[in-house]
Amino acid sequence: MARYKVILKYDGSAFHGMQRQENARTVQGEVENSLRQIGWDGRSIMVAGRTDSGVHAFGQVIAFDMDWKHPVENLLKALNATLPDDTAVSSVEEAGIEFHPRFDAVARTYRYQIYFQSQRDPLRDRFAWRVWPDLDLEILNEAASCLVGEHDFAAFGAPLKEGGPTIRFVDQAGWKQGSQSDEIYFEVTANAYLYHMVRRMVMIQVDIGHGKQDLAALKAYLARKREGMIQGLAPPQGLFLQEVRYE
Amino acid sequence: MARYKVILKYDGSAFHGMQRQENARTVQGEVENSLRQIGWDGRSIMVAGRTDSGVHAFGQVIAFDMDWKHPVENLLKALNATLPDDTAVSSVEEAGIEFHPRFDAVARTYRYQIYFQSQRDPLRDRFAWRVWPDLDLEILNEAASCLVGEHDFAAFGAPLKEGGPTIRFVDQAGWKQGSQSDEIYFEVTANAYLYHMVRRMVMIQVDIGHGKQDLAALKAYLARKREGMIQGLAPPQGLFLQEVRYE
Repeated sequence: MARYKVILKYDGSAFHGMQRQENARTVQGEVENSLRQIGWDGRSIMVAGRTDSGVHAFGQVIAFDMDWKHPVENLLKALNATLPDDTAVSSVEEAGIEFHPRFDAVARTYRYQIYFQSQRDPLRDRFAWRVWPDLDLEILNEAASCLVGEHDFAAFGAPLKEGGPTIRFVDQAGWKQGSQSDEIYFEVTANAYLYHMVRRMVMIQVDIGHGKQDLAALKAYLARKREGMIQGLAPPQGLFLQEVRYE
Repeated sequence: MARYKVILKYDGSAFHGMQRQENARTVQGEVENSLRQIGWDGRSIMVAGRTDSGVHAFGQVIAFDMDWKHPVENLLKALNATLPDDTAVSSVEEAGIEFHPRFDAVARTYRYQIYFQSQRDPLRDRFAWRVWPDLDLEILNEAASCLVGEHDFAAFGAPLKEGGPTIRFVDQAGWKQGSQSDEIYFEVTANAYLYHMVRRMVMIQVDIGHGKQDLAALKAYLARKREGMIQGLAPPQGLFLQEVRYE
């Protein structure tokens, strides 16, 4: 028996999120189905980060214990042969038997993709949020720089456990030009997140870019000088769990 | 009554191609449904180019006659409000009453996207063909240059009408680096195409890149010194009707 660490990619469009649910198609459910087809008899896989309905992953991390008698490369191939088209494994390695993808993670990076067009684009709407009018990258980056550091992010989301801590440490947050001239993306790395935190971060920054909110409001939320939760939520299809880092 | 020229984008994944069919979801069927919802009572729209099941369009062109009493900008908005999520209009303009998107087209450009990975990538498989091992861009471009000019492309596809001509003029054909280091794309512009012609062009070039075919075979097909049709067909999801040009 060994513990395996697996990096997972998925198109979240047709999933009700990562976490297993009764009567709903989830990434965890599909991965556990595939694992059972190749002989796994565990009760549950371990997952680095929950993702909401419609959110994608470029580098989700999971782990499970299994008695696999073949080379580890074959485990990767067997998983990709049995997983549905919208999920795939990009790496499999043996990890220490104590490894836990969630508790051992030191940082998680999310990416949020936006494109600027006045009309829908069916070639991009699956993996990005259409925003109009366009936004100034400099203004967005001024807002992003406020997010960096240790803050009480209570206005950005609820903790997974009611009454749990809402202080998080953001290592890095910024906006970059995408591969096309009308595309930008936000990238944020933090030790951990609150529920919907990245989507609220994106929402308030887009509102600042459109002049519906200002930097002072963002700073007031971060300093807990403004009550309540940030209004609005950037839609899920722009969001990707990009990378989970371990020591 | 005026004739409108419309540029259309679609994600072809869930369509049985462009052309209307009984009992199958097609782009033409959806566009005609939308048009009827906003008062069009024509029999059929005119279409620049048929695309196969699963093939996408960035710049398909259609035309129709309609008695639209509002600004042309509102016609665009009305269409995008009624079309399904996987289809959208990017431009609408009034055209001369004689304009025909198919017969007046002087050139059509297709793009074919490929990425190089040994394992599936659900974030890219919808809009590209996964090829492994990777290919040398210089070898591909040597093959592409053979395609340029006037040739009898009978080995690349059947004409739409049985017994029709198979000579086509290719203005330009070449491969370029994509936005990521493991992505490339083929772009070809020709006056017209045979059925499945671009997908056979891509297939033989990929086979040449993998050493399964050679340039001599490609040249022999083009010179009609080799019998039969090129074997194999690059899959539809990498192909985009990019642009249709008019005088």
